[in-house]
Amino acid sequence: MRALGAPMLGHLDPDLLAMMDETREKLRRLFRAPEGSFAFAVSGTGTAGLEATVANLVTDGTRVLAVVTGYFGDRLAQVCQRYGAVVRRLDVEWGRAIDPARVREALAREAADIVCVVHAETSTGVRNPVAEVAQAAHEAGAIVIVDAVTSLGGHPFEMAQWGIDAVYSCTQKCVGAPSGLAPVAFAPSALARRVTCRSFYLDLGLLEDYWVRRKYHHTISASLVYALHEALTAIEEEGLEARWARHERHHLALAAALSAMGLGLLPPEGERLWTLNAVRVPDGVDEALARRDLLSRFNMEVGSGLGPLAGKIWRVGLMGHSSSPQALLLFVGALESVLRRQGYDVPAGAGTSAAIDALRG
Amino acid sequence: MRALGAPMLGHLDPDLLAMMDETREKLRRLFRAPEGSFAFAVSGTGTAGLEATVANLVTDGTRVLAVVTGYFGDRLAQVCQRYGAVVRRLDVEWGRAIDPARVREALAREAADIVCVVHAETSTGVRNPVAEVAQAAHEAGAIVIVDAVTSLGGHPFEMAQWGIDAVYSCTQKCVGAPSGLAPVAFAPSALARRVTCRSFYLDLGLLEDYWVRRKYHHTISASLVYALHEALTAIEEEGLEARWARHERHHLALAAALSAMGLGLLPPEGERLWTLNAVRVPDGVDEALARRDLLSRFNMEVGSGLGPLAGKIWRVGLMGHSSSPQALLLFVGALESVLRRQGYDVPAGAGTSAAIDALRG
Repeated sequence: MRALGAPMLGHLDPDLLAMMDETREKLRRLFRAPEGSFAFAVSGTGTAGLEATVANLVTDGTRVLAVVTGYFGDRLAQVCQRYGAVVRRLDVEWGRAIDPARVREALAREAADIVCVVHAETSTGVRNPVAEVAQAAHEAGAIVIVDAVTSLGGHPFEMAQWGIDAVYSCTQKCVGAPSGLAPVAFAPSALARRVTCRSFYLDLGLLEDYWVRRKYHHTISASLVYALHEALTAIEEEGLEARWARHERHHLALAAALSAMGLGLLPPEGERLWTLNAVRVPDGVDEALARRDLLSRFNMEVGSGLGPLAGKIWRVGLMGHSSSPQALLLFVGALESVLRRQGYDVPAGAGTSAAIDALRG
Repeated sequence: MRALGAPMLGHLDPDLLAMMDETREKLRRLFRAPEGSFAFAVSGTGTAGLEATVANLVTDGTRVLAVVTGYFGDRLAQVCQRYGAVVRRLDVEWGRAIDPARVREALAREAADIVCVVHAETSTGVRNPVAEVAQAAHEAGAIVIVDAVTSLGGHPFEMAQWGIDAVYSCTQKCVGAPSGLAPVAFAPSALARRVTCRSFYLDLGLLEDYWVRRKYHHTISASLVYALHEALTAIEEEGLEARWARHERHHLALAAALSAMGLGLLPPEGERLWTLNAVRVPDGVDEALARRDLLSRFNMEVGSGLGPLAGKIWRVGLMGHSSSPQALLLFVGALESVLRRQGYDVPAGAGTSAAIDALRG
């Protein structure tokens, strides 16, 4: 936040340009992108990152196999469609991950140019096995677009090792910066398959000219660059593996606490995100009232269920800075409090106690 | 800048939503938009505002008459083309404004659906007579898209009175906020002519759902909303007419100073912007060296010439907060200093003295 408020530099100021170069380098390392990748930040939110990725790889007639395991998988499929793709969907029950065998079968039945899949499905709390999906895609000659909006910086993400061709994310989740920029990365394999981009704002060639060859394209927000640069520096100070482990630890402690309170998570073990916890709303509890209570009494915002999960889950983020023992204990205590106010019986202090035990372990 | 660093609100927080409603209202007043307009901010820079405007009004086969008086008029024409328009260009010598009679003639020769024109051409320092262009367009049944990137908040802009159908701008020039959001406004006449938008991020229907009906679309930067809201509040405290007069006053004082120094502006009187002053580089002066000197010795950034004007002009912004007696006097003094260092003779103190006289008047 302090970086955000630093004095303004012009968008062509040499000091800002140097910071942009460092930001590209740091993003390349954060994505674990292969040699020759182009990693940078789109001047917009994660949704702009999504659209930038699609707009440079999808054109009229592109055959896309879209894995849809929730709201954001559906959005990705929709945007491919808007850019002219012939989209085949692999729909999965909301709350479950894709079985990579289904991708393999679908590609054997009918070829595709691109497979797209969400790594961390923010609407359901599910982690998809993107490495296995990428392998299946490559075996069938397709490239892979991955949405890493809710995973980058919180879950292991190995662009090079997993063979991800193109990926986009956002800044305000596990990266820990304010929203407004969208990190994206194109591997050489994706750069080689780019199409003529209709958009001017999101045209990869123009954005390369801007970020690499310093040719004017738009007036990037210096403030947002400062903040992203600072957040990426903080990630490197913590260490990426340590950061992933921190997200896992607090997720496991939350899962233990919920279980001790008689509550549960929507996805089965092994398919759960560490960063976004989809908590099942117990019968008889008014979920919207609980969220309002959390906000007004504890200044804590929890997401509601989307689409078919409306009213059925709370989406509890433990991301970036907020993946902490403090946020965890505060949430567990606050949840006990708001449930009690609704007359829902939870074993007194059991959640907190279980969380503390888990953290000690 | 202080507003930018205020504590973060979630993008669905009621307090942020209330601030977004006020921002819409303030933008409507700033554009002087007609009843029933939709004014809001695109989550991107001015270029995203440009593209959002075009993407919702232009589709395959749309007939566009593009007035091109410089780099940004050319960009607007290019984006229309990318969105499928059949573009006819009215090119004007860089440094001059369009003669509305040419628009009238061009439309009489061949009809168009849309006329697009830049109000304040940032590349040449020229102000185009957009009210007259809009009248010519309407008489021929076309609607008008106006680029108000370098005029909004600095020059009179009367969307309703002039009959502008759609307009976009940016935040970091005369509005006086950090960059990263793009104010746009669609009059009812433009809302009625919207087309199916290929972009998801810039789809007007989805953006109305988001801003008006609070349906999730993207995670707007709360920080940038705070800063824009604060800047718009500052504009209303100053008063829009007073703000316009302030920009005019400092422009006239700069023009007087330049003239006393034997320098001149590129556009003829009557076609000049108050906000962006295109100063002719005198013969024998190294323009890039002068800019480097201004930056390194006075921490002052001046734009270079673009395209055919490269090396021929400096672009000196007096916009928003920087349209002040302090910035003016500092620039005039600094310019005298860097010119002298290059051995270019200017009458000692004449520029400063002329500026002071003009400010007193």
